[in-house]
Amino acid sequence: MNDNEFLRACDALIGAPHVLRGADQAHDMAPYLSDWRKRYTGRALAVLRPADAQQTAAIVKLCAEHDIAMVPQGGNTGLAGGATPDVSGRQVVISLRRLDRIRQVDAANHTLTAEAGCLLANVQQAAQNAGRLFPLSLAAEGSCTLGGNLSTNAGGTAVLRYGNARELCLGLEVVMPDGALWDGLRGLRKDNTGYDLRDLFIGAEGTLGLITAATVKLFPRPAARMTAMAAVRTPAAALALLNLAQEVAGPLLTGFELISDFCLQLVSHHFPAQRYPFAQPHAQAVLLELSDNESETHARQLFERLMETAFARGIVEDAVVAQNLQQSQALWHLRESIPLAQAEAGLNIKHDIAVPVSRVADFIDATDPIVQRIAPGARMVTFGHLGDGNLHYNVMAPEGVDAHTFLRQFQAPVTRAVFDSVHAHHGTISAEHGLGQLKRDEAAHYKSPVEVALMRRLKIAFDPNGVMNPGKVLPD
Amino acid sequence: MNDNEFLRACDALIGAPHVLRGADQAHDMAPYLSDWRKRYTGRALAVLRPADAQQTAAIVKLCAEHDIAMVPQGGNTGLAGGATPDVSGRQVVISLRRLDRIRQVDAANHTLTAEAGCLLANVQQAAQNAGRLFPLSLAAEGSCTLGGNLSTNAGGTAVLRYGNARELCLGLEVVMPDGALWDGLRGLRKDNTGYDLRDLFIGAEGTLGLITAATVKLFPRPAARMTAMAAVRTPAAALALLNLAQEVAGPLLTGFELISDFCLQLVSHHFPAQRYPFAQPHAQAVLLELSDNESETHARQLFERLMETAFARGIVEDAVVAQNLQQSQALWHLRESIPLAQAEAGLNIKHDIAVPVSRVADFIDATDPIVQRIAPGARMVTFGHLGDGNLHYNVMAPEGVDAHTFLRQFQAPVTRAVFDSVHAHHGTISAEHGLGQLKRDEAAHYKSPVEVALMRRLKIAFDPNGVMNPGKVLPD
Repeated sequence: MNDNEFLRACDALIGAPHVLRGADQAHDMAPYLSDWRKRYTGRALAVLRPADAQQTAAIVKLCAEHDIAMVPQGGNTGLAGGATPDVSGRQVVISLRRLDRIRQVDAANHTLTAEAGCLLANVQQAAQNAGRLFPLSLAAEGSCTLGGNLSTNAGGTAVLRYGNARELCLGLEVVMPDGALWDGLRGLRKDNTGYDLRDLFIGAEGTLGLITAATVKLFPRPAARMTAMAAVRTPAAALALLNLAQEVAGPLLTGFELISDFCLQLVSHHFPAQRYPFAQPHAQAVLLELSDNESETHARQLFERLMETAFARGIVEDAVVAQNLQQSQALWHLRESIPLAQAEAGLNIKHDIAVPVSRVADFIDATDPIVQRIAPGARMVTFGHLGDGNLHYNVMAPEGVDAHTFLRQFQAPVTRAVFDSVHAHHGTISAEHGLGQLKRDEAAHYKSPVEVALMRRLKIAFDPNGVMNPGKVLPD
Repeated sequence: MNDNEFLRACDALIGAPHVLRGADQAHDMAPYLSDWRKRYTGRALAVLRPADAQQTAAIVKLCAEHDIAMVPQGGNTGLAGGATPDVSGRQVVISLRRLDRIRQVDAANHTLTAEAGCLLANVQQAAQNAGRLFPLSLAAEGSCTLGGNLSTNAGGTAVLRYGNARELCLGLEVVMPDGALWDGLRGLRKDNTGYDLRDLFIGAEGTLGLITAATVKLFPRPAARMTAMAAVRTPAAALALLNLAQEVAGPLLTGFELISDFCLQLVSHHFPAQRYPFAQPHAQAVLLELSDNESETHARQLFERLMETAFARGIVEDAVVAQNLQQSQALWHLRESIPLAQAEAGLNIKHDIAVPVSRVADFIDATDPIVQRIAPGARMVTFGHLGDGNLHYNVMAPEGVDAHTFLRQFQAPVTRAVFDSVHAHHGTISAEHGLGQLKRDEAAHYKSPVEVALMRRLKIAFDPNGVMNPGKVLPD
């Protein structure tokens, strides 16, 4: 079967309008061939847009039979190039965006079943319509898809209370690399009947199979939320505040973000409408949020008790408490503007790392001087989900130095030193963004040979011909 | 290498006193060769008791090289025969009980690392000594081990709030079937660097590798707990109370057990010291518990609000609220006495099933009449973790009928009908006890061929020679 015959067979399976190919359709294909940060651009024999799980299974079977490598793609908002084809032009992109139905909401079971191509925001909305909460929340929620969230085990801002995508998923429907459809869509809280297939596909970035639908956990909607920004002296003080907040608020503590003063200054500088939140500068800020199932009054009392204790113990220097939803959103907007302010300030060396929560301050104290020795004057843009031990530990050119020149000279040695320090602190070089193409080789570098060998055995067991998203997660 | 040479090689690796074998040591070996309910009894070439992970790896490597099948064993409290050798006398039991050290407690990271042979109660105690809670709790906690809990993905009475063993585990150390040691002992809340090996070993009942240590999550210790027994008319009313409790108490709701009136009567009958909790009989009872991080006062207020609303809506007919720890323990003791009272009453047909929480009442309403048609007059002993959709749906001989005769006649058809109904309600035939030998074939019967094939591929990928706990989980 030559390329034309293959493409006509695709037409027959999913309809010609959903098989994008050739120079005529280059414009329509383009958005599927680059990641959104434009770090990776590939080519493709075709972009295939099946309508449902059955069409997806049929098209995967066809590709497998003709040894055509497939690149599954959701909202294409990934940060590691996991959904971009290679430059050979021999791969196909399978876009899941047309699989966008909410199949079932079972409010009494606190579950929802949705197709992989549903936008995260639509899943959140479907839960809300049923009087429930789907707590996964991240900046790209208006354009990322549930399938992509699960394939990359997405994190976001409420992991501390609700867990990451893995912990929110009860069941999956997956098309295997040979086109077999596995129906694992279970809405069960307990099921001990054999190997945990579900968690193998979550975070596998489409290299073991192609997620077409998922059953996820819902939660009661909280009655109130309290947001505050607290000023502290050091990351160690932020950790002390975290521990106190966990003691006082237990499972109600929903978010706990660390933001260095330089991050806030960067936001104020590039977005002057966003005011620096404190009367005077403080070295570190913490954005913390409780969500309460009881009442606004109870949430406020709990919060006041927490902050009083923190002041009394000298942990906190100042605090701004949101008095309403608008003020709460303004505080979160500050936090979410950091990556945008960074982008305004020019390219920088990004790291999405995690260490044990107890070691975050040690990690920063040990690593900052190492970075300074390699790249004197580099500016540290340190922020992230402290409650999860997850830092976006980014490094910016010194004042007045050209960003491109800085990256060319320092990206490799700085990243090596940061990752070595992460490794020494028993951490991970990819906390929530996955590996894709970007960190594939680095991950293999830091993993033990035993672990890499086990991963390879899994890949071979499920995809012996290497047709499902080859070149991602594992080195070829 | 003949048997004697093999055993001497074992002696050299772990010391002769820890290699039990032969007629001389039959008495010492016996406890390792039967499960505690004495449903399965096997034989063994030897019982090997390594002292640490390195010795375990060495002994596994030796067995693998000589194609000797291994049966890992923890506290030997399993309910499905997963830790009992076959009758050939060619297998060895590897007891992990000497791997009993708490390696590390990191209170600020809310983690603890312990070896597989640690008793669950000792892990709980180590957490408590550090001012933290390890919430996994089940009847066998004084004799079961952490490794066994993870290998069977144990559930227990606090799954509703804290999750099952899987959700409590962050990292593992595992000896692979060829003797390679995988160090996956990570104390990280986020780590997206490839395939989720950890969850593959959890619930695999020692068929993919042998867990030697684990890093588990700890939690702040609650300040107070509230326990009550509420009388309701039907399982549907119990579900309405569950929904209300989840709305009012959110994540503070820790336990929610359904107990039919017949179960309480059975306990009162066989253990007269345990009084029936209500002034008059009610068809169903619910044991519910909140654990509160704030205060006794707050817990009581929340609880009173919940019960007032439940009475006002006509969901609850009566309620007994524990006024102190002793009364709380007495209510739990009632619940925990059900299996003991059943044992006093004679053998019965046991099922550990789960369905979506929303379908529990439908399941009972649909299945009770089916059982009655097959075995008229059979008495239903229905209780379990309603919050997880998990019922111990047990069937007892009619009044005056010999239990053995009843089982001989009805066990097979009743279990088939119950499992068929579970399957029709999108449930599972093993919610928290695993498969072992007991439900291995039944699970394969209800799973799709695609799923069984995927499980088999995993087994072959990790244990190509089938030396690690063969005959468990998957049919040979």
